[in-house]
Amino acid sequence: MKELKTSIRNSCLDQTVDALNSKGATGITIVTVHPVGYNFGTRFSFSEQEISKRYYDISKVELVCDAGELDTYLDVIMEQAHTGSSGDGLIFVSGVSEVIKIRTRKRGSNISILTE
Amino acid sequence: MKELKTSIRNSCLDQTVDALNSKGATGITIVTVHPVGYNFGTRFSFSEQEISKRYYDISKVELVCDAGELDTYLDVIMEQAHTGSSGDGLIFVSGVSEVIKIRTRKRGSNISILTE
Amino acid sequence: MKELKTSIRNSCLDQTVDALNSKGATGITIVTVHPVGYNFGTRFSFSEQEISKRYYDISKVELVCDAGELDTYLDVIMEQAHTGSSGDGLIFVSGVSEVIKIRTRKRGSNISILTE
Repeated sequence: MKELKTSIRNSCLDQTVDALNSKGATGITIVTVHPVGYNFGTRFSFSEQEISKRYYDISKVELVCDAGELDTYLDVIMEQAHTGSSGDGLIFVSGVSEVIKIRTRKRGSNISILTE
Repeated sequence: MKELKTSIRNSCLDQTVDALNSKGATGITIVTVHPVGYNFGTRFSFSEQEISKRYYDISKVELVCDAGELDTYLDVIMEQAHTGSSGDGLIFVSGVSEVIKIRTRKRGSNISILTE
Repeated sequence: MKELKTSIRNSCLDQTVDALNSKGATGITIVTVHPVGYNFGTRFSFSEQEISKRYYDISKVELVCDAGELDTYLDVIMEQAHTGSSGDGLIFVSGVSEVIKIRTRKRGSNISILTE
């Protein structure tokens, strides 16, 4: 399995999550994070500076999927969270070895087994 | 080492953390996350709908342990966070290669070295 | 690539993040977490107990870097987040296989390609 982690603009959050859900994504979690290392003064336009506080509280979306679904979800995020301006964010992919469903105690190495 | 990540009901949080602690778990962190993709209207009972906002802010528990301790902690979580209803959550397991203790600058590939 | 996760004292947060930035770190995220398993009563001094609530809300710093930069960033964190007292925290290192830049759709296995 693969874990996708991406920190995206709050303004793109709803449409990104809706699109991920429509593709069948399970186990999405969202947490407000504080990114650092961005120079709002020079890289954002004036109107964006005024609401930079809003962008500063961006949303980190985490999602685990089977390896075969990775490209589908990457495409969804690249489409929905893309504005073309600096600050669109990065997606990081790492490996996840096991998943356990607490209710059924089912355990495996593919998230798809949970719905079988 | 293994990292366990699990998003569980807030109502199970205290007992789960207490049980993990009693088994000697170190480095547990808790963060409030916003899970999505759950249809509260149809999958939760009426009384649960009324307090769905509470469930909606669930707690993500993260824990790193040595590989040999993995099953112990999985059992603790499956026991303490289990209600039998939809929404009990998933546990994801992934690999962690190194740990460093900032105070002592001790570095290794087993979390147990930190207490030696 | 490597992911560093560390939960450090809030009082060390600013200087740690500034030092990481000055070394060129990208993609740092900060989230407030609630660590558990610490006995504030016995392990913290009296003055620290009074402000233990502040320490209790510690900051989790996450950072992805190329493998060759790992030691540089570990050194920065060990220097800036070190007080010598219990509670300085741990750093966990795990692998990250891919990175995607949403704005440019550039995809690769080294974070340095994003700025090429």
